[in-house]
Amino acid sequence: MAYSAPKVEVTSAFWKNYRDLVVKKVLPYQWQVITNQIEVDLPLDPGGNPTTGDTLSYAVENLKIAADQAEGKFHGMPFQDSDVYKWLESAAYALQDHDDADLKDIADGVVDLIAAAQQPDGYIDTFFQIKWPDRKFARIQQSHELYTMGHYIEAGVAYYEATGNEKALDIAKKIAACIDAHFGDEAGKVHGADGHPEIELALARLSEVTGESKYAELGRWFLHVRGKDPDFYDKQNKADGWDRDFFEQIKYLPRTYYQAAEPVTKQQDAEGHAVRVMYLCTGMAHIARLTGDDSLLKACHTFWESVVHKRMFITGQIGTTKEGESFTYDYDLPNDAEYGETCASVGMSFFARRMLELEPKGEYGDVLEKELFNGTIAGMALDGRHFYYVNPLEVDPRALKGNPDFRHVLAERAGWFACACCPANLSRLIASVDRYIYAVEDDGTILADQFIANKATFHNGAVIEQRSNFPWEGHVEFTIDNPEGAEFRFGIRIPAWSKGAFTLAVNGEETNVEPEDGFVYLTIADAKTEISLDLDMTVKELRANNRVAEDAGRVAVTRGPLVYTAESADNAGDLWLYAIKPGSGAYEFKPELLGGVGTITEQGTKEILDESDDLYLPAGSEQTESASVTFIPYYAWANRGEGQMRVWQRTV
Amino acid sequence: MAYSAPKVEVTSAFWKNYRDLVVKKVLPYQWQVITNQIEVDLPLDPGGNPTTGDTLSYAVENLKIAADQAEGKFHGMPFQDSDVYKWLESAAYALQDHDDADLKDIADGVVDLIAAAQQPDGYIDTFFQIKWPDRKFARIQQSHELYTMGHYIEAGVAYYEATGNEKALDIAKKIAACIDAHFGDEAGKVHGADGHPEIELALARLSEVTGESKYAELGRWFLHVRGKDPDFYDKQNKADGWDRDFFEQIKYLPRTYYQAAEPVTKQQDAEGHAVRVMYLCTGMAHIARLTGDDSLLKACHTFWESVVHKRMFITGQIGTTKEGESFTYDYDLPNDAEYGETCASVGMSFFARRMLELEPKGEYGDVLEKELFNGTIAGMALDGRHFYYVNPLEVDPRALKGNPDFRHVLAERAGWFACACCPANLSRLIASVDRYIYAVEDDGTILADQFIANKATFHNGAVIEQRSNFPWEGHVEFTIDNPEGAEFRFGIRIPAWSKGAFTLAVNGEETNVEPEDGFVYLTIADAKTEISLDLDMTVKELRANNRVAEDAGRVAVTRGPLVYTAESADNAGDLWLYAIKPGSGAYEFKPELLGGVGTITEQGTKEILDESDDLYLPAGSEQTESASVTFIPYYAWANRGEGQMRVWQRTV
Repeated sequence: MAYSAPKVEVTSAFWKNYRDLVVKKVLPYQWQVITNQIEVDLPLDPGGNPTTGDTLSYAVENLKIAADQAEGKFHGMPFQDSDVYKWLESAAYALQDHDDADLKDIADGVVDLIAAAQQPDGYIDTFFQIKWPDRKFARIQQSHELYTMGHYIEAGVAYYEATGNEKALDIAKKIAACIDAHFGDEAGKVHGADGHPEIELALARLSEVTGESKYAELGRWFLHVRGKDPDFYDKQNKADGWDRDFFEQIKYLPRTYYQAAEPVTKQQDAEGHAVRVMYLCTGMAHIARLTGDDSLLKACHTFWESVVHKRMFITGQIGTTKEGESFTYDYDLPNDAEYGETCASVGMSFFARRMLELEPKGEYGDVLEKELFNGTIAGMALDGRHFYYVNPLEVDPRALKGNPDFRHVLAERAGWFACACCPANLSRLIASVDRYIYAVEDDGTILADQFIANKATFHNGAVIEQRSNFPWEGHVEFTIDNPEGAEFRFGIRIPAWSKGAFTLAVNGEETNVEPEDGFVYLTIADAKTEISLDLDMTVKELRANNRVAEDAGRVAVTRGPLVYTAESADNAGDLWLYAIKPGSGAYEFKPELLGGVGTITEQGTKEILDESDDLYLPAGSEQTESASVTFIPYYAWANRGEGQMRVWQRTV
Repeated sequence: MAYSAPKVEVTSAFWKNYRDLVVKKVLPYQWQVITNQIEVDLPLDPGGNPTTGDTLSYAVENLKIAADQAEGKFHGMPFQDSDVYKWLESAAYALQDHDDADLKDIADGVVDLIAAAQQPDGYIDTFFQIKWPDRKFARIQQSHELYTMGHYIEAGVAYYEATGNEKALDIAKKIAACIDAHFGDEAGKVHGADGHPEIELALARLSEVTGESKYAELGRWFLHVRGKDPDFYDKQNKADGWDRDFFEQIKYLPRTYYQAAEPVTKQQDAEGHAVRVMYLCTGMAHIARLTGDDSLLKACHTFWESVVHKRMFITGQIGTTKEGESFTYDYDLPNDAEYGETCASVGMSFFARRMLELEPKGEYGDVLEKELFNGTIAGMALDGRHFYYVNPLEVDPRALKGNPDFRHVLAERAGWFACACCPANLSRLIASVDRYIYAVEDDGTILADQFIANKATFHNGAVIEQRSNFPWEGHVEFTIDNPEGAEFRFGIRIPAWSKGAFTLAVNGEETNVEPEDGFVYLTIADAKTEISLDLDMTVKELRANNRVAEDAGRVAVTRGPLVYTAESADNAGDLWLYAIKPGSGAYEFKPELLGGVGTITEQGTKEILDESDDLYLPAGSEQTESASVTFIPYYAWANRGEGQMRVWQRTV
């Protein structure tokens, strides 16, 4: 299925706020960080390993050294370059939306710098160019070379699309040519895939923007070579020198960590590093569409089932354990030890979007919505300058300080990370959220997938304006201007949370059209059509499937797409002392709170703190009092100082 | 306060079974292991580190090499010798109770071997004698030299007491002389304490058996030097060569890991490795009694408060995190990730016993009882050949296999450990349990602390016979034969779980004497006194103090001293699906089950497994049915194959 992207202007107040934040705060801040203008107190690596000790990023400096514009040592992670590339990609999306000559000057300069750093053969990876020039592509389990170059390809494609800068695209093509020259089935080439998927999805993007199928085919080759020879990495490591690791601990992680224990088409569960799985799946879905490879589509379905129905936290976050930032086993969803990497939620958004481009199923949009309004944006503070890498659903600051098992969790967001993948990943998602609202099918059907107010112009001349105060209100209006009188199907996703409880009116007439696989479809032929949709915004308490041990007997508070949470800032005392009464939740929008959020107050009880200093007491001896619990949207937690936070509540 | 030990013959069916197991199964099995006659599949170190790869213990072989009776390399942990010493100590207690010429021959031979391995200056530690002869006492943060020698002193004292073997005691005295020559305030001596407390409590025992106060004074010096110079270990490590570690990771643990961040008399919380804290406290309590050092008694009270009232699991287990096998912070008691090392429960038993010898408080016996009937014996399978190092209160075998955060937990007990401290620690406790039943105060008061049937002869000629079927029945009879007509106070502990609910009859007359600080006191002067005590054996559900987040809304089932648990073997399906109704528990003794145990059946509900494959569902949509839950004593879990186990239950 080909994909005709509409031109979309986001008008949603909620998302404009985030997008302005990216342009005005996040991009300038990240630029200062990657150019060593800001010294950041890099916290411990979330996995608990000590960092390099650097308090500067050096990411741009490394490129200058590779380009012979500076002298010095390489600093940072082997994939440090990708911080620059993700910044450039975010800047590209921002420039598509905002005219900003200063930003464009800086970004053009970055493209020039990258071009200068790139070798004549197309290779670019400053870690290897500066530090290990004789070990290129020799240890791809750990090198992240294709990962890093893939990030450039994404950035180059985006920057070319946004600004028409041909140089940016040429760098990407030269990278692809270099990779093609070194990887493949032919003798003398490397017969394996990068330890971290990314190049596959990047090649798909390059294929789509250039219209050249060879890039998609190269990406397809990487998808199928993964796990074909399960010993591939061990062999390469031995040839390169067994103990010459870039990441000591990685070699001993199971092959599933890299989704390389067997071919991707044979894998039955999402295993290993959650981000790797998401990037892999994004590439599989995209390349399945571009090449028609149904074995990849089938693999996407298998991974989707495993993640979405068995391994996803209620906020869309994925990855249970800090060890390898990995999936564990079905229904293992501990709220406090949860890893839930921001990048994994961003990656799940990518995957969901690519699946919707393949198939019109409401579940893809449901998951994308869950990520957009919960799992992803929780990764950034409202100030745009502090970030989470790890996103638990339950926090007690005492545990984070006092119990080393929670060393990976922070009570407040950090200014930056030694491994800085998350902040720029989130900013590029936010800056490109306009691309996540609609999908256009082969037959011309337009799917309105996300309730993000916007004005969009389509391939067929139709202009669709979507107006709403979502996620705070469930009333959504669409005005379809169809001056050329094109006839097309228009599908609107009815979220699972509003299933059986919505009203739809077309030109003022209520209709009873039922959703098919999550979408209601209308045929549009008139020059102007007014559609009004009202979604069910009642407060709903959810429980987990009872295969989830951690949530037994507990409920989470939700409204529309938002999962809510309780914080110490609104609720006195230890949060586990409270129990709520499902059905008692009252909603109120508070414009002054946290940039304007809807709050929910549930009625229930609170245990009075025991007077006894005995650790164990007779059952039933606890004293309780009536109490209410105030909830805020999960994404907005940890913006008011350190405190407890708890999504899953006991019930009365 | 001096301590006159009675001669006690244990007649309790419950404990005779365990003590026979130690003699007939555990000691022969452990002997085969430490003499390399059994190859054991050594599981991963519970902390998750790979082991040495050895599948043989080599513990006795190391001594032979040091004694020039064999040739070869040193194998095992730096403290490998202590496995032999703890075996010898257990054998000593067994010989005191059972005449066994074969065992005595072997044990005499072990003493001879140790004497042959000991250097003329008294030093003995085969790791250093064989491997690092030039690094003796040079890195005592990690060397465990005084720990290892302390274990010999304990063994030597016990073996001398049991058999009169003077050679065994002489080795101990020579060790003490060697240590005295190398440690102290004088210039040229080492001014620090071993990274692992043990020598202090060992010197106290040597002091008591020899009547020589110099040993207690040397122990007292070690107690006060700890933490005096917080940089002591760093300085020694630097002098010895910073990177020449015996345990790589230990150097980077906080000083609190060794209770060495400040002087013990200034420490306010139990911090660091739980076993180290317990050995330290045992030594402090014992030396406080022997030397009258009230600052140490005060420190004991502080540590006791911290552990017993804020950091102890309901089964008496201590140590929350696998990282450093350590305490974390107050009320941090996670049931699944719990470390709860068997040695720590054994150590808590030592500490409680020494405190009771100092002060007649019922709480000491309450904790000792909790350990004896729950926390300690759970460390051994009913077959006497499988052991737990780590003892959680909640297990799901899927988590242990599927989530690396639980790598330290085993679903079934292991045959042996690379670090084999626990099995022999438990066997020496069981074999010496006769020493934990009574305490005799300075004024001649006899305290009957533990309900373990026995016949005991005291310093004053009194013979006390205690008869009961404890812990299954609460009826306890004492017959006191007092042929010499001595007049003395006799205190019987009224356990906290029976407070306000017991009946006491003296010579057939019910009395209303009230407990003072946990003991009821009678004055005994008659030639014969018959006492009958009935304790409250109703089933009781307990909750945790509501400062404990993990147990919020949950209850544990108990009866008398025993904590009960639910296991898959008795209860179908996932255990978290059940909720019980407190007050509904019915008790039944099942002679055929698990060697004969009392079971409890609670009434309640069970959620029917969801049919939906959605991960999140409306609150209240769960289907439940009436169900009962069968409980067995916690100590007996994991004797019927792999399955789930859960102490803390949801309630209806």
